[in-house]
Amino acid sequence: MDLFEKLLQDRGPLGQHSYFDDNFYMFPKLEGEIAPRMKFRGKEVLTWSLNNYLGLANHPEVRKADADAAAEWGLAYPMGARMMTGNTKYHEQLEQELADFVSKDAAMLLNFGYQGVMSVIDALVDRKDVIVYDAESHACIIDGLRMHMGKRFVFPHNDIENLERQLKRAEKIVSETGGGILVITEGVFGMSGNMGDLKSIAALKKKFDFRLLVDDAHGFGTMGATGAGAGEEQGVQDDIDIYFSTFAKSMASIGAFIAGRADIIDVLRYNVRSQIFAKSLPMPLVIGNLKRLELLRSKPELKDKLWTIVNAIQNGFREKGYQIGTTQSPVTPVVMNGDTLEAVNLVKDLRMEHNIFCSVVVYPVVPKGTIILRIIPTAVHTLDDVAETIAAFEAVKEKLDSGVYKEAGVEGAYAKI
Amino acid sequence: MDLFEKLLQDRGPLGQHSYFDDNFYMFPKLEGEIAPRMKFRGKEVLTWSLNNYLGLANHPEVRKADADAAAEWGLAYPMGARMMTGNTKYHEQLEQELADFVSKDAAMLLNFGYQGVMSVIDALVDRKDVIVYDAESHACIIDGLRMHMGKRFVFPHNDIENLERQLKRAEKIVSETGGGILVITEGVFGMSGNMGDLKSIAALKKKFDFRLLVDDAHGFGTMGATGAGAGEEQGVQDDIDIYFSTFAKSMASIGAFIAGRADIIDVLRYNVRSQIFAKSLPMPLVIGNLKRLELLRSKPELKDKLWTIVNAIQNGFREKGYQIGTTQSPVTPVVMNGDTLEAVNLVKDLRMEHNIFCSVVVYPVVPKGTIILRIIPTAVHTLDDVAETIAAFEAVKEKLDSGVYKEAGVEGAYAKI
Repeated sequence: MDLFEKLLQDRGPLGQHSYFDDNFYMFPKLEGEIAPRMKFRGKEVLTWSLNNYLGLANHPEVRKADADAAAEWGLAYPMGARMMTGNTKYHEQLEQELADFVSKDAAMLLNFGYQGVMSVIDALVDRKDVIVYDAESHACIIDGLRMHMGKRFVFPHNDIENLERQLKRAEKIVSETGGGILVITEGVFGMSGNMGDLKSIAALKKKFDFRLLVDDAHGFGTMGATGAGAGEEQGVQDDIDIYFSTFAKSMASIGAFIAGRADIIDVLRYNVRSQIFAKSLPMPLVIGNLKRLELLRSKPELKDKLWTIVNAIQNGFREKGYQIGTTQSPVTPVVMNGDTLEAVNLVKDLRMEHNIFCSVVVYPVVPKGTIILRIIPTAVHTLDDVAETIAAFEAVKEKLDSGVYKEAGVEGAYAKI
Repeated sequence: MDLFEKLLQDRGPLGQHSYFDDNFYMFPKLEGEIAPRMKFRGKEVLTWSLNNYLGLANHPEVRKADADAAAEWGLAYPMGARMMTGNTKYHEQLEQELADFVSKDAAMLLNFGYQGVMSVIDALVDRKDVIVYDAESHACIIDGLRMHMGKRFVFPHNDIENLERQLKRAEKIVSETGGGILVITEGVFGMSGNMGDLKSIAALKKKFDFRLLVDDAHGFGTMGATGAGAGEEQGVQDDIDIYFSTFAKSMASIGAFIAGRADIIDVLRYNVRSQIFAKSLPMPLVIGNLKRLELLRSKPELKDKLWTIVNAIQNGFREKGYQIGTTQSPVTPVVMNGDTLEAVNLVKDLRMEHNIFCSVVVYPVVPKGTIILRIIPTAVHTLDDVAETIAAFEAVKEKLDSGVYKEAGVEGAYAKI
């Protein structure tokens, strides 16, 4: 069969909706400076869907650092892979500052988080090794696992009893192959907002011999006394063998890093394929991230402000009787009941009538009949923003419960867009 | 066994050399503006190892575009994945201009080339499909294949007779599974510099039903009448079903794109995991790439100048009796005979005594006893640079042949660095 014909016949879970693509539900354009108030289709909306947790994206010092660095270096330098021609003293400085910040010996920059995680997993294991991972792990972790030729066992999200069973299975395998065990979880899970149970996983190190890789994309900058993440929050930072975070969330940039023991990071520098065979992080991004890290460390008031907003909106929702699941982080999933078409009409109403822009998650990511509106509070939101949003949610919730969105149907979802 | 102990015991083909790491052979720092003359350890060197083919990295208009865009937008905008909150009209404009330039209906930006290729391959096939690929394909293609659950068959580099045999095998498989066939090769191979035999592969479409994906990282901007790449050069651009190029070479940036039939690109937008689940290309990179593409199209003299240098250095080497293999592109591999330690001493001599900085490739990338010095000419090199380099090569070649580097041994390689 022709490959292209096949693709057109089965457009995938998201692609099946692509016929309606009009930059409204999918590929929308949020215009203007990154802030709680941006333009969407010419109108100002209150945005709750950007992982700009600390408000650094548009901080004047960050903007100045970005502009100055691009003026001084251009966006091309350095060219080539880090190992060949892409290294600079600023790359090394950022690595050392990141390592210090997350209390590890050494760090290694990654030119992009997604391929970085994939290749780090790939470099850590061979076919003799077993990977044991949390079922709700991010797509980049799953894609990393997919390259693994050895066994992999999944445990239900944060189910430590089950994890222990998987570790027993893994132990049996590696006793035969002579391999090792890698456990992978996240610091903060981006959909539910709850933390990986790092404390319980760390405790299992007394019973099992494994190494722990934690993707702390949403925890870095938001969790722990100093913002060093979920490991710091739970008092088990030392038990994280490979700490990973992207710069795409609290740091409001791109790129990523891993941190851990110096001797291991040193070996990884020579074995992480997406870093050996692809271009180094451009200089303005390195210098911009140095500035972001400096602010993240030196301005704890940003994290405090973030949590003021987080607590206000999470308590506000709870007081009104909304389910916000098990979140322990800024990620705030508001759970409602309804089918996909109701969700679509609700989001349209929120965006067009209430000027609230947030993300929606429906089946198959969550069970059928469940709608999750995902709110990402930031340090630059205000308490007025919170009040306005909860009021808007009350209005759409009432319509949802009264069946208005069900009646609107598919015609309603695409009318006047 | 402990995973970390295992890593330390087997440090990998490159990692075994890491004990000597001193930013000389590995992770060197080239300082100053990207140009033929840069600083290495405080001294000016003549660089031949940057894929800045057209000299765009440091072109005044590029530098201005980069600086202005970073000043206007910062490096954070837009945040989020393209599909959710990371889309802008400039992303769409760059896609359309890229599609037009390579004579395809539509294009899709990729936030990074390495993960982009991997996930595009992943999105194109399922376990019923068969991938047939050139043995010398780049690491990102190999990593993409490694996620594939179906069959994959390799053909020796550019061996069309063998490819035909692999296609027959693939045909048999898909006749049973109901799947399709994807052939993957490159426009220009980055090590040898020769082109994928796209013309012969395209001709096989009359006998077999397959789709063709071409990674034209080194061909984009350098090959073909307009610089549209190896497909244009060979007159078979229309037979390339998915055209891929990175921005990390001729475009002197980061990011990448694919181009092809509009309906297929549309489906891919909803199915390429590294794009759905990771941040969009930052705006200054998009605007910077628009400017680079404009120059690439409007200044054919850059490509002409590149080829003047390419022809001068390749003819120069040939006239002196050097083997430069089968290159048909700017990539210029100069082949010498010697072991790894001789190669290391030779490179040290080139860098320290002759102030020539180029990359070296040794076993296991090339056969034992072979040394390849890889020269990447650019439009900003001069004929004097060429003459200086050939003279330096003559000097080190003489020493190599006389056994000086063999005698120097490991002590010589690391003395006074």
